[in-house]
Amino acid sequence: MATTAAHSDYVPVPEDRFSFGLWTVGWQGRDPFGEATRPALDAVEAVHRLAELGAWGITFHDDDLIPFGASHQERETQLGRFRKALAATGLTVPMATTNLFAHPVFKDGAFTANDRDVRRYALRKTMRNIDLAAELGAQTYVAWGGREGAESGASKDIRLALDRMKEAFDLLGEYVHEQGYPLRFAVEPKPNEPRGDLLLPTVGHALAFIERLERPELFGVNPEVGHEQMAGLNFPHGAAQALWAGKLFHIDLNGQNGVKYDQDLRFGAGDLRAAFWLVDLLETAGYTGPRHFDFKPPRTEDVDGVWQSAAGCMRNYLILRDRAASFRADPDVVQALADSRLDQLARPTLEPDETPAQLLADTSAFEQFDPDAAAERGMAFERLDQLAMDHLLGVRGA
Amino acid sequence: MATTAAHSDYVPVPEDRFSFGLWTVGWQGRDPFGEATRPALDAVEAVHRLAELGAWGITFHDDDLIPFGASHQERETQLGRFRKALAATGLTVPMATTNLFAHPVFKDGAFTANDRDVRRYALRKTMRNIDLAAELGAQTYVAWGGREGAESGASKDIRLALDRMKEAFDLLGEYVHEQGYPLRFAVEPKPNEPRGDLLLPTVGHALAFIERLERPELFGVNPEVGHEQMAGLNFPHGAAQALWAGKLFHIDLNGQNGVKYDQDLRFGAGDLRAAFWLVDLLETAGYTGPRHFDFKPPRTEDVDGVWQSAAGCMRNYLILRDRAASFRADPDVVQALADSRLDQLARPTLEPDETPAQLLADTSAFEQFDPDAAAERGMAFERLDQLAMDHLLGVRGA
Amino acid sequence: MATTAAHSDYVPVPEDRFSFGLWTVGWQGRDPFGEATRPALDAVEAVHRLAELGAWGITFHDDDLIPFGASHQERETQLGRFRKALAATGLTVPMATTNLFAHPVFKDGAFTANDRDVRRYALRKTMRNIDLAAELGAQTYVAWGGREGAESGASKDIRLALDRMKEAFDLLGEYVHEQGYPLRFAVEPKPNEPRGDLLLPTVGHALAFIERLERPELFGVNPEVGHEQMAGLNFPHGAAQALWAGKLFHIDLNGQNGVKYDQDLRFGAGDLRAAFWLVDLLETAGYTGPRHFDFKPPRTEDVDGVWQSAAGCMRNYLILRDRAASFRADPDVVQALADSRLDQLARPTLEPDETPAQLLADTSAFEQFDPDAAAERGMAFERLDQLAMDHLLGVRGA
Amino acid sequence: MATTAAHSDYVPVPEDRFSFGLWTVGWQGRDPFGEATRPALDAVEAVHRLAELGAWGITFHDDDLIPFGASHQERETQLGRFRKALAATGLTVPMATTNLFAHPVFKDGAFTANDRDVRRYALRKTMRNIDLAAELGAQTYVAWGGREGAESGASKDIRLALDRMKEAFDLLGEYVHEQGYPLRFAVEPKPNEPRGDLLLPTVGHALAFIERLERPELFGVNPEVGHEQMAGLNFPHGAAQALWAGKLFHIDLNGQNGVKYDQDLRFGAGDLRAAFWLVDLLETAGYTGPRHFDFKPPRTEDVDGVWQSAAGCMRNYLILRDRAASFRADPDVVQALADSRLDQLARPTLEPDETPAQLLADTSAFEQFDPDAAAERGMAFERLDQLAMDHLLGVRGA
Repeated sequence: MATTAAHSDYVPVPEDRFSFGLWTVGWQGRDPFGEATRPALDAVEAVHRLAELGAWGITFHDDDLIPFGASHQERETQLGRFRKALAATGLTVPMATTNLFAHPVFKDGAFTANDRDVRRYALRKTMRNIDLAAELGAQTYVAWGGREGAESGASKDIRLALDRMKEAFDLLGEYVHEQGYPLRFAVEPKPNEPRGDLLLPTVGHALAFIERLERPELFGVNPEVGHEQMAGLNFPHGAAQALWAGKLFHIDLNGQNGVKYDQDLRFGAGDLRAAFWLVDLLETAGYTGPRHFDFKPPRTEDVDGVWQSAAGCMRNYLILRDRAASFRADPDVVQALADSRLDQLARPTLEPDETPAQLLADTSAFEQFDPDAAAERGMAFERLDQLAMDHLLGVRGA
Repeated sequence: MATTAAHSDYVPVPEDRFSFGLWTVGWQGRDPFGEATRPALDAVEAVHRLAELGAWGITFHDDDLIPFGASHQERETQLGRFRKALAATGLTVPMATTNLFAHPVFKDGAFTANDRDVRRYALRKTMRNIDLAAELGAQTYVAWGGREGAESGASKDIRLALDRMKEAFDLLGEYVHEQGYPLRFAVEPKPNEPRGDLLLPTVGHALAFIERLERPELFGVNPEVGHEQMAGLNFPHGAAQALWAGKLFHIDLNGQNGVKYDQDLRFGAGDLRAAFWLVDLLETAGYTGPRHFDFKPPRTEDVDGVWQSAAGCMRNYLILRDRAASFRADPDVVQALADSRLDQLARPTLEPDETPAQLLADTSAFEQFDPDAAAERGMAFERLDQLAMDHLLGVRGA
Repeated sequence: MATTAAHSDYVPVPEDRFSFGLWTVGWQGRDPFGEATRPALDAVEAVHRLAELGAWGITFHDDDLIPFGASHQERETQLGRFRKALAATGLTVPMATTNLFAHPVFKDGAFTANDRDVRRYALRKTMRNIDLAAELGAQTYVAWGGREGAESGASKDIRLALDRMKEAFDLLGEYVHEQGYPLRFAVEPKPNEPRGDLLLPTVGHALAFIERLERPELFGVNPEVGHEQMAGLNFPHGAAQALWAGKLFHIDLNGQNGVKYDQDLRFGAGDLRAAFWLVDLLETAGYTGPRHFDFKPPRTEDVDGVWQSAAGCMRNYLILRDRAASFRADPDVVQALADSRLDQLARPTLEPDETPAQLLADTSAFEQFDPDAAAERGMAFERLDQLAMDHLLGVRGA
Repeated sequence: MATTAAHSDYVPVPEDRFSFGLWTVGWQGRDPFGEATRPALDAVEAVHRLAELGAWGITFHDDDLIPFGASHQERETQLGRFRKALAATGLTVPMATTNLFAHPVFKDGAFTANDRDVRRYALRKTMRNIDLAAELGAQTYVAWGGREGAESGASKDIRLALDRMKEAFDLLGEYVHEQGYPLRFAVEPKPNEPRGDLLLPTVGHALAFIERLERPELFGVNPEVGHEQMAGLNFPHGAAQALWAGKLFHIDLNGQNGVKYDQDLRFGAGDLRAAFWLVDLLETAGYTGPRHFDFKPPRTEDVDGVWQSAAGCMRNYLILRDRAASFRADPDVVQALADSRLDQLARPTLEPDETPAQLLADTSAFEQFDPDAAAERGMAFERLDQLAMDHLLGVRGA
């Protein structure tokens, strides 16, 4: 039986393109109500452990790798150790990003802080790390505006804030262009937390925003599973719209149990069916970017639990990839999709070059169309979804 | 004191540009768990009653005005009565829309139904009502895809569905262009209900989508207060992004108590502070479109309650408009906004024509910037928000 | 391997105690935005089809079985046909309930309507159907107060409404007691919809309420999966508290995708992991009541889809039951549970009869206890949860 | 006009019984994504500043007042300073509570931690602070189980955890009884955060739980506005059920914008209408306990902003108290309440001592009752709610 035979293969290899944020396995467990439960993790150890587990890449915020305020010498020393670990393990740095949220100076935002000097400082902090990202070979620069938002109505003029956001991204796009860096930006939306409401709260808002930039071709999105689910949105739908727009530049995989605080569970925890459909989408839509895990091992875990959790992210992706493939390959599924007329959805509504006048002249479309009769056709979606459930749970094919 | 003196003036006039959907005051109270509690409302009576209450416009779905399946003669008779009532009262028809959700033929969608013949029928049904909208002088044609969505993962290929959605809107844009109608389209987002997940779930997703159309200049959005709040999003923020993008073509005002089923409460019910900030935004941002109420008088109400509820929508808008104006005019508020550095937010982050190189050369921006010292500045947002609260509640100025 | 060998056995039998509401398979698909998509289903056909599919019981609201306002003769005829179908198939009637929400007379509630005559009528309507329930051999009478609630603050005095609710249940308890009916009541909570807010919104509120009744022993709860999930609550946790209180008298199984309108998806759709843990709980906690499905086949489905959907509810329960059993039987899981110290959770915190004074005298509990050292112990929950995931997905044991 | 004349009186006095947690004004602004933005606040300064602002009481967690792990001498010194400040200002200590969530030892809970030694330690830590609470004259001891919960299904057996929770509260109840302390416990529910799901997630679950304790008379609830709203529940309804059950022993006032992370905004921010109805309830239902603010001044604020925020909590309560009183006193409201038949809700459904048989014999209740005719009565709730809106906004009475 394919499903069970395959389970011994749920072991990741670099070709799977799994990457992890340094801040994920390195999270010490400090939360709004409690202190750290784990010791700090050295970046070099993270590189080695992730490589051993089968990961392909590691990513970082500037301050994850080099402590905020480090001297030039400390910086160089730490970068040297990091580069050496990368070389030793073959781990790549596909993406980097800027921490524009932890230091109190960003308490009212970075690119959209009311204080202009904070905005200028945020730009410079970002440019500095873009240089490092380019140097380390990253192709994607993620921008999460963790403090761009507000708790109260008058404290932020949203239209002005979007002007400032545009100004910042235009400057950064210009910089990357001038420098000839092969970097593209991926804007990461989130609806709220740590601010009461964040700017660019969903994939849609971010996609819309980047259309107004001076170099839109340099900008895409980095949707995060849990962030969209915090707004009750269907994550695979959002990812699909980003793909449709040609803008899925990066993706953050994790788990979330619906509309509540940002949980950052390991991938596969939380909404399992959404995870299944997401993997199905990524694997069938030609997405070739990293499979990046942005999760937090629960603070109940010790260091061993951290690595169990990281391994689980990859294992779950592989199981779901296997199950999605078996779903798509099943002849009964192929038939069920046809029974649900997915083939008709693939066919254009209009004839080639059909004009409004031609559509108006087609009496079969309206005058002779019998809506009551057409309404009697069942869509057969429940059977199709049960087939998906059977594949997800591995009860087909034995 | 301005606030109390003004209260006798909370009586709407046509210049306030208040409009109502025929389906709002006409809602009979049928819900998923119960039968109608009110008799049908004749469109002519609706026109007269709304005009008496001080409204300026009335809007409709095709099937609100002319029953689905009416004969040509019935259609003409009903249109004649409606036109006569409009003429008698001076009420305008600023907007019309298509019902693509009530008939069972649309159970899997209209422009994105898997069945191609349903999609073609939906286009024709829409074109027919666009003709009527243009004839009645409407400037806006709203498109809410109430059934464009899915309950299960395989039943809809989202990228194909967006292709079909684009195809439909491109055809309609072409049609309006060819006909020379002075109509623009306003796409109305909603996250879910009646489908498990809807396409274009938020203002952001709709704004992003229309950028991919062939005639984007013809397309904007019609955000509805409750729809965004069903996703837990900040409605004034969403409306502000639409304004920023030049795409707030129309707006649906109502009330909602957070993330739950679509409540369609009268404007002012639900999130009162969001309503206040919304009115402040619309009145200060130069929005000149209709103030359109899309609400449902609760089914506990009889016909008298319907009109009480409709009058309440307008009254609440006027009270909030008055309070927002008093907030903006208060010298203490002007000072508090400056204390919170809103003036700095209005100032570009960069000097005129400042290049990346120039920013990098400005040591005051980074090398000499002291983030710890800068972080000590309080933002004074709580005082500012309390001033807003005082104005909202009318306790300033006595 | 047990998991795959068992899959051919995912066929329900009466011993599984699966029951369905007549209103579930009979739902015609009328929703707030659309008309019915399916014809009416005769109760006799429902009995036969459910029996064929392997169900054990059928349940009903009074008005599902006998149309509201039917004459005595129509009532007797319909009851005769229904009894005959039950006899022919062996299907049982384990539960019945009252429709106190569909008729407009209940628009402001039934037991807590402001109108006293409506309250008295609601009691009589309920007593009438209790007689029928007892006659048909039901052991449980469910009470869902679908209209007991409010949309606005002054319209309902909640403390008075709870007085009226108590009065109603006390009267019904007295009636059942007097008549000697072997019936117990199961109160069904729901947070909202169709009212803006409902009384007894969660399992907790219902459990607390019944403690204040005159005959609390006659009252328990009927939690519904989707209803608790509409409030973002963990359903297995709520069911566990009901079991802990000795009050899980009945249960409504279905699916829901988080905080939104009431979806009533088939069991297994929606939150799959919650469904897994729920089945694990019911099967290990000695719950012997019906496994009752309260779902709505999506209105995209025709009649065939209805039965596919009903069959899917049972199939999914059986798959999950199988997976939960394999999880509990796995020696690695047994060890992992011990590693996570679940055995210590089972052990009382205090020594037998330990007094406060004795606890205070135990210096090992405080004075000599080293919290920092104790905090270093990892809980090993991630590994345990991954084992659960592996069993749920059927990738262990091959 | 009463409303505007009163505004100069929105200055709190001790008779208003306003209290604040030491941890509220003392919150330094550390959140999941950022570091502290404010310096530590000395408890003595907090006492003096709160007294100056017009507060009546101050409350604390053990570790707020005396740092975790302080020596006996440090403890006594700090207590001495605190007592002196209380004496100097007249501020009271109406409530105290235990921090069972910040130290890593509680990462899996306190009373329900899997580790038995952690549970015993938690009990001792609590008993120690109960002694202090009693000594300082507190009447209420709040218990929030901030870490009692789980992120994954197998990690916590909920029924066993409730056994352990009961064991803990029974021991504490016994201790308080033995010591003769005039303390009652108020259990504080919360649905989630910092754990994925918390035990006793709502007011209802807590009310139900305490009915199973050995000394239920010693236990009530401490509902927090935002906690219930994180589950989308109507807070005034929950508080009303607690009052109805005789169990509203304490209350935590703050603000929250719907279903998301725990915001702890100042009272009056967030859902303003819910705040209005809550104040109306507390002031009319005879609640005599503290009006306790459990909020967090946003981390954008400096120390001055902290006190602005604290003052705003009290000011908003007083404004709303004034508005609720004017609502209840308005003759038009009295009439509107009668028009909505609130008087009938106050009247028992049954005649005095009416039996089931007597109800069955009353043909006016059923046989002669015309539901269709009764359904035509409008409830007039929209007018009533608009009157409430007018009073809330201060536009009546000029």
